Amino acid sequence: MSQNWIAVDWGTTNFRAWHFDAAGEVCDTVSLPAGLNQISGRFEPVLLDAVGPWLSHGYATSVLIAGMAGARQGWMEAPYLDVPADLDDLHNQLCPVPGTDPRVDVSIVPGLCQRSPENPDVMRGEEVQLLGLTSLFPDFSGPVCLPGTHAKWVSIKGSTVTGFTTHMTGELYALIGEKSILGHSVDCQAAPDADGFAYGVATARRSRGVILPHLFDVRAGDLLLDRSPAWNAGYLSGLLIAAEIVSELNHLSGGQTSDQSGHRTIAIIAAGGLAGRYKAACEAMDIKTQLIDGKDTTLAGLSAIHAHMNQTL
Amino acid sequence: MSQNWIAVDWGTTNFRAWHFDAAGEVCDTVSLPAGLNQISGRFEPVLLDAVGPWLSHGYATSVLIAGMAGARQGWMEAPYLDVPADLDDLHNQLCPVPGTDPRVDVSIVPGLCQRSPENPDVMRGEEVQLLGLTSLFPDFSGPVCLPGTHAKWVSIKGSTVTGFTTHMTGELYALIGEKSILGHSVDCQAAPDADGFAYGVATARRSRGVILPHLFDVRAGDLLLDRSPAWNAGYLSGLLIAAEIVSELNHLSGGQTSDQSGHRTIAIIAAGGLAGRYKAACEAMDIKTQLIDGKDTTLAGLSAIHAHMNQTL
Repeated sequence: MSQNWIAVDWGTTNFRAWHFDAAGEVCDTVSLPAGLNQISGRFEPVLLDAVGPWLSHGYATSVLIAGMAGARQGWMEAPYLDVPADLDDLHNQLCPVPGTDPRVDVSIVPGLCQRSPENPDVMRGEEVQLLGLTSLFPDFSGPVCLPGTHAKWVSIKGSTVTGFTTHMTGELYALIGEKSILGHSVDCQAAPDADGFAYGVATARRSRGVILPHLFDVRAGDLLLDRSPAWNAGYLSGLLIAAEIVSELNHLSGGQTSDQSGHRTIAIIAAGGLAGRYKAACEAMDIKTQLIDGKDTTLAGLSAIHAHMNQTL
Repeated sequence: MSQNWIAVDWGTTNFRAWHFDAAGEVCDTVSLPAGLNQISGRFEPVLLDAVGPWLSHGYATSVLIAGMAGARQGWMEAPYLDVPADLDDLHNQLCPVPGTDPRVDVSIVPGLCQRSPENPDVMRGEEVQLLGLTSLFPDFSGPVCLPGTHAKWVSIKGSTVTGFTTHMTGELYALIGEKSILGHSVDCQAAPDADGFAYGVATARRSRGVILPHLFDVRAGDLLLDRSPAWNAGYLSGLLIAAEIVSELNHLSGGQTSDQSGHRTIAIIAAGGLAGRYKAACEAMDIKTQLIDGKDTTLAGLSAIHAHMNQTL
């Protein structure tokens, strides 16, 4: 028998939950600035406060959580699956949270890890989006980019994640643009200027992704060339995003392009201005993109796990 | 007639002055944590306070200042000389500070700038060290590295600076190691671990200087591989320093090594642990180094300018 259930995406800065009815449709949602960094470890009270109106007495509603809530400093550490990892295996490795309020039955989705000494890496939350991607596009195969504070680039074959790399692009943009000497010359609150962005992309491409020698261009361009803080915001963003793309293309192709026309397609899971900037950078480098909404993949992934859980029962 | 004079190196975090007697020997020094960032624009009081005991009534002692005191936010903006710039021309372009206490006659050395849209850059203070280098080693020619918060790599032919690039290596090390997510896994106060450093150098070399995809290794290596905060400090330092060297070697050589043996020599103007790390990174990449003390070059450079000034008078 199907019942209502709750999907949760719980990261370091945000808490989002969706209430699915027994027919599998989203009937309510809630979004709160209640990430790990804000709640001082008060996981259960925050959860019950947020989704309390959706709960019933007399039975436990299934709550499926993805994201940093499963990290060491989260609610309960959910062990990682090692890559290569079959995304269809995630539902077998859920981490139940014992001893909670009887109205909820909480499980946390495991993250993925890559124990290579040359490129160790971890993800939490994106694995659900990747499962969602393979659910929404069953024939998908290839490189996937998930932009963000810690952008991930993932290689997928069938339902298997074969490897991935984290780029601290979003965090570096904020750190360098606000906290370094370049902060005098960059307006990180402004929309990045399109001309500056294009110039940053071209510079990163010409430099084959070696952009560290170009960061100080921002300061000198302010002092010598009257480049504006908004132009510099675009330039810094273009440098960092294009460096990420260039390095991944080199990595993915071993220096070769993927087909006779020299084109390849990257799936980008993102939304809004950030998705637009990744798309623009890719287009400037003759790379095709397929934009996929991040929320859609999260919900599709959690729904797929929930469906598997019910099959198993 | 020779007189006593005062050489000053005035940066963003430190003030250092040397008192030269009429015979051209250093007879006293003072070093204070009184850089631009600490003194709220009180340049003349800080200077007089520091060097007051060296001054005489009845004549103005020449005070020659190098460094950020000549920046826009400094005591008085000393215009830049454009590269290519002849270092022997610095003394012709000094910026006098008018209206000071009658016991001092203050001049600020101009910085250098590179107005290229592809690689705009500025320096203040290093130009004096470069002049000092050419004074101490008249036959010097080649690439010079000045490590630091904003490391400079400079191409010199004879007494002419033909171009330069700033790398924000030191600032990035502190920012990323202390203020980013990696701060949980890096002990920036510890001496960087030598094994971690060597591994970072090897990683940067293998990656041809494209190290941004490897920054997050630090976090994952802590979570997955039990790498210690000191090891990670070494790794991060090795990644950043070697990326700087690799990118400059590519730039300087156009991808070619400099002689039949594949060896080249880099002059490194630095001291202490930082000089040792640059030397170690270069050696790991079969690059010969010549270490030159930074204070020696500063004093030689300011002395050369002072000698020119007296010839001109």
